Amino acid sequence: MVFMEGKGKSKSGGRKGKEESSLFDKVWTLANHRGFVFPSAEIYGGIAGIYDLGPLGAKLKNNLVQAWREFFVLRETNPPVYELDGSTILPYDALKASGHLDSFTDPTVSCLKCKKWMRADHLIEDSLGLYVEGLSPEELTKIIRENNLVCPDCGDGLSDVSVFNLMLGVQVGPAGGQTAFLRPETAQDIFLDFKRVQQSMRAKLPFGIAQIGRSYRNEISPRQGLIRVREFTQMEIEMFVHPRELGSHPSFGRVRDVRIRILTRGQQMKGEIEPVEMSAGESLEKGILPNAYMAYYLAKETLFYKSLGIPYDKFHFRHMMPEETPFYSGGNFDLEVELSIGRKEIVGNAYRTSYDLSNHMKKSGKDLSVDFDGEKVVPEVVEPSFGVERAIYCILEHCYREDDGRGWSWFQFPPKIAPLTALVVPLVRKEPLTDISFKTYENLKENGIDVEYDDRGSVGKRYARADEIGIPFCVTIDYDTPKANTVTIRDRDSRKQVVVNRDSLTETISKLVSGVIKFEDLL
Amino acid sequence: MVFMEGKGKSKSGGRKGKEESSLFDKVWTLANHRGFVFPSAEIYGGIAGIYDLGPLGAKLKNNLVQAWREFFVLRETNPPVYELDGSTILPYDALKASGHLDSFTDPTVSCLKCKKWMRADHLIEDSLGLYVEGLSPEELTKIIRENNLVCPDCGDGLSDVSVFNLMLGVQVGPAGGQTAFLRPETAQDIFLDFKRVQQSMRAKLPFGIAQIGRSYRNEISPRQGLIRVREFTQMEIEMFVHPRELGSHPSFGRVRDVRIRILTRGQQMKGEIEPVEMSAGESLEKGILPNAYMAYYLAKETLFYKSLGIPYDKFHFRHMMPEETPFYSGGNFDLEVELSIGRKEIVGNAYRTSYDLSNHMKKSGKDLSVDFDGEKVVPEVVEPSFGVERAIYCILEHCYREDDGRGWSWFQFPPKIAPLTALVVPLVRKEPLTDISFKTYENLKENGIDVEYDDRGSVGKRYARADEIGIPFCVTIDYDTPKANTVTIRDRDSRKQVVVNRDSLTETISKLVSGVIKFEDLL
Repeated sequence: MVFMEGKGKSKSGGRKGKEESSLFDKVWTLANHRGFVFPSAEIYGGIAGIYDLGPLGAKLKNNLVQAWREFFVLRETNPPVYELDGSTILPYDALKASGHLDSFTDPTVSCLKCKKWMRADHLIEDSLGLYVEGLSPEELTKIIRENNLVCPDCGDGLSDVSVFNLMLGVQVGPAGGQTAFLRPETAQDIFLDFKRVQQSMRAKLPFGIAQIGRSYRNEISPRQGLIRVREFTQMEIEMFVHPRELGSHPSFGRVRDVRIRILTRGQQMKGEIEPVEMSAGESLEKGILPNAYMAYYLAKETLFYKSLGIPYDKFHFRHMMPEETPFYSGGNFDLEVELSIGRKEIVGNAYRTSYDLSNHMKKSGKDLSVDFDGEKVVPEVVEPSFGVERAIYCILEHCYREDDGRGWSWFQFPPKIAPLTALVVPLVRKEPLTDISFKTYENLKENGIDVEYDDRGSVGKRYARADEIGIPFCVTIDYDTPKANTVTIRDRDSRKQVVVNRDSLTETISKLVSGVIKFEDLL
Repeated sequence: MVFMEGKGKSKSGGRKGKEESSLFDKVWTLANHRGFVFPSAEIYGGIAGIYDLGPLGAKLKNNLVQAWREFFVLRETNPPVYELDGSTILPYDALKASGHLDSFTDPTVSCLKCKKWMRADHLIEDSLGLYVEGLSPEELTKIIRENNLVCPDCGDGLSDVSVFNLMLGVQVGPAGGQTAFLRPETAQDIFLDFKRVQQSMRAKLPFGIAQIGRSYRNEISPRQGLIRVREFTQMEIEMFVHPRELGSHPSFGRVRDVRIRILTRGQQMKGEIEPVEMSAGESLEKGILPNAYMAYYLAKETLFYKSLGIPYDKFHFRHMMPEETPFYSGGNFDLEVELSIGRKEIVGNAYRTSYDLSNHMKKSGKDLSVDFDGEKVVPEVVEPSFGVERAIYCILEHCYREDDGRGWSWFQFPPKIAPLTALVVPLVRKEPLTDISFKTYENLKENGIDVEYDDRGSVGKRYARADEIGIPFCVTIDYDTPKANTVTIRDRDSRKQVVVNRDSLTETISKLVSGVIKFEDLL
């Protein structure tokens, strides 16, 4: 992930102020209440911008991460992608060299009276509607003074603008110790270990290195739930390619015809907000994307997020403007999702060129080049960087349903990522129904289906509770079960029910989850 | 995981000094060389005790974690176990309340001349062979003075003993910020979130909450590779039980007859080092274990580690001595594995009673009791706490093989956790063999088999390389393949080969991995 954050010039992309939309509030409240996410260490007041994923959130995350790993790492054959699991603590020298110590900063002001700290750029944008990305602290101070901006909380005067480093420092070891930082992105471990991975796996260009793990940013003012947090999970890939080979990707044929939506720089200059649509192949032929690897990832990401329940017409790739992009970048494209609180970036795709490796070579004095047909090469890098918590919020909001007449809100999660696949319910809490129900629950669990058991309240209430947390299938054990060995499967989406044999239940549910059959096929 | 560390009184359990055994060196060197694990940020000199798992180590870890999650969380039906994914940063108040701020410490001394810091207890044990667990800084200083102990590096005098807190602090937020710490154990998130999880899942006692994630300890002197590190992964479960219900576990019947090995306190008092063996049922009936939940976990852990390739007679559960156990504990049992560098704890099993919840209730002022048939109850807790990196080292050492006449060392990983399941090799690098080989590789990958492709060097060399990283099966494409559509599977362990139809390859390998068939069955 690169330093700059994609807020963009597109008009609907601006952040909204304190008044979040009511959809955000509804989804967030439900997510809190039902154990998807809640503030960490809440009983002691917690820390702003630090959250825990509860049982349902953790399952959703595990399913999302595993789907990603399969699609972007394990099933990739050419180029292969290796996974790394590196430390979250990195030494001073590494982050000084990477540029994070000097450049991973936000401009801040504080109120002279109430001492509140805030981001200077956000204050100016919220107060004046001015876009100030890339301006210096002096320029921001000038704008604040000229417009007589004051503290939005107490109305008092503001300090000059200063820069604040977003890394969290730690001192490792006794007696003052060694200065280190919690990593601001997982990418740096990958660059630092590049040569080790290449050598130990005898890897030849092109190849990728992926990493899934925590990163940390000491945000001045965390907000909007999971959108701007201080501790978060990233899934990143650095794809290392010979500089002359970027024009073609060996598996591009698999994604050439995938339609993708792009908001070009030209459109943004004209204030347009509706992306253009084209195939991955066209985006490359027309020169809209800088290389085949970028096109490959934009296509893969489109397929991935569609499969997670985010509608195709609700996300696009925005070509970042020059002032939002590091000087060394060959082109950055953020995947932005339309939410009730504006357009939010959930994936950053960066063509990082050979900047990071060249830079670490220079600063560490170590040779990070690789052999390519007898030639020494410093590869170039295309990086898709995925934010997990942000994606979880997008999935929650885009899968949230109400007003379809059922009298309660619900989540229409795709079965493959739903936190729970099925709920087993006895029609009444009576033997032998409860005993058969519990055995059915045990049997499904032992066969790898993620399932819960619920015998409390009316069946209708239990269906409603299942809908509310997005369980795709309810399995009801009724008076026919002991006699005919049949159970009823209720479909969350259609609310239709079908009777199946209890012995084929695992197989039926597995097929429904994998999409081999659809519920309608059973009717 | 509790504060004290299990070094134990058992004679073979002591740490060895600087001279590690050559087996340790061989395994560690191979693990470094082949990309299982290497120092983090190595090109900048790194930080002692902080490592990255390379591609093979990360896969081994992913397989281990997933096997654990299935066995201890997902497949558990009664009691159910919920998974949490909490933050690694916790506020001061929470860790003050938990006791970590005051008690999560090690005694240290420093050299007055060279300023080297070391653990006072380790220095005394290494120099004098004295066991000093639980002694105060004053008592340790007295021993150092009376025995004229000096700096082992420069021979100069030593400071008085002081206590050093092992937590890594971070300041969160601008302008000094809020004092927080990197969590020293994942368990605290679970206690802090206990009520939220219970309420959102409508959970009834007994139930468990599990967590997999990073924890941090600012070790004075990290050593022995992955055994004593500063950043590590834990897999912990807190099982919450009504205090009156600890005597019986609803699924105990499933493990009653599992044989477990226990080193009792009585044996340790007598200096015995050979554990006694009994069934889980017997251990409970004889009163050797404090409750049925402890017996349940000791049995499950025995099954689990056996399945990961650690021989049954190479690990046991040691009943921790009173001075190694927190005052509130109802009995702690460490799973210790015999290694070339001594006996090492890889799981701590702690009967934490209701201490943590009661304590957090008192300090936070929040009611953490739950309703149990109309009664307000603060549950008691049994906690198995698994160290991932330590387990990885144990697996590496216990799966390491040499001297069986093949001329190279190799890893006999059980197929289900082996980093790679298969290697596809064309007999020679020639068409159509390479093309068929690559398609075979792609097909296996797409079917979820973790496989690599290798066409470099002689077939013998490739088999040797595959053995060296513990790949259970090599799939060779030879001149018969284009004609008869057959491939040869080579078994790592027996080095025997069998010809199978290429169309049934995925199925055959899947069955070999799951254990449905054995390689001998194919011969």
